[in-house]
Amino acid sequence: MNLPPVVHHVFFWLKNPTSTQDRDKLVEGLKTLAGIPVIRELHVGIVASTEQRDVVDASWQVSELMFFHTTADQAAYQEHPIHLDFVKNYSHLWEKVIVYDALNIYSK
Amino acid sequence: MNLPPVVHHVFFWLKNPTSTQDRDKLVEGLKTLAGIPVIRELHVGIVASTEQRDVVDASWQVSELMFFHTTADQAAYQEHPIHLDFVKNYSHLWEKVIVYDALNIYSK
Repeated sequence: MNLPPVVHHVFFWLKNPTSTQDRDKLVEGLKTLAGIPVIRELHVGIVASTEQRDVVDASWQVSELMFFHTTADQAAYQEHPIHLDFVKNYSHLWEKVIVYDALNIYSK
Repeated sequence: MNLPPVVHHVFFWLKNPTSTQDRDKLVEGLKTLAGIPVIRELHVGIVASTEQRDVVDASWQVSELMFFHTTADQAAYQEHPIHLDFVKNYSHLWEKVIVYDALNIYSK
């Protein structure tokens, strides 16, 4: 599949990690980001029930996976009003965020 | 785009983080994984040159992003001979790996 090459993967640790209500609220907030045109792909995830291994970090609660055509598009997304509103309205829900920004050099 | 819902994202920290030779070798190894049929999508990445922010972890060197139809497919991948060969032949290159397994509950 021809996915845009800039990958933006964010993992959220909730302040109330066992609260499905808070989880659902954050998922609802992430869905609003779909209104931002430079985002070519938006996927919202929860921890998958794969095998527990030392290298697998399953301590987060909600993830957001986006694809962009360019790093300039990714920068534009950061400043987009819908994104700023998302941070304003939902950041009270999480206590930690880790972001990975990758540039794909091979796809199959 | 209709991507399979099980996301497997792995980040590698090289023993020699500044060695482009080691990086290229690991990328070469990751490309061999494309021969594993249960992997529906394989993307190999390097750190994107996005803005440096506190929440962005840009300390890794190589990433692997895969999509699977089911967690059972993901488990089958772990045991596939090509994957086991990859670990045998290339794991001397890295000193740390973090794996995130997500299940997408929303896509747009």
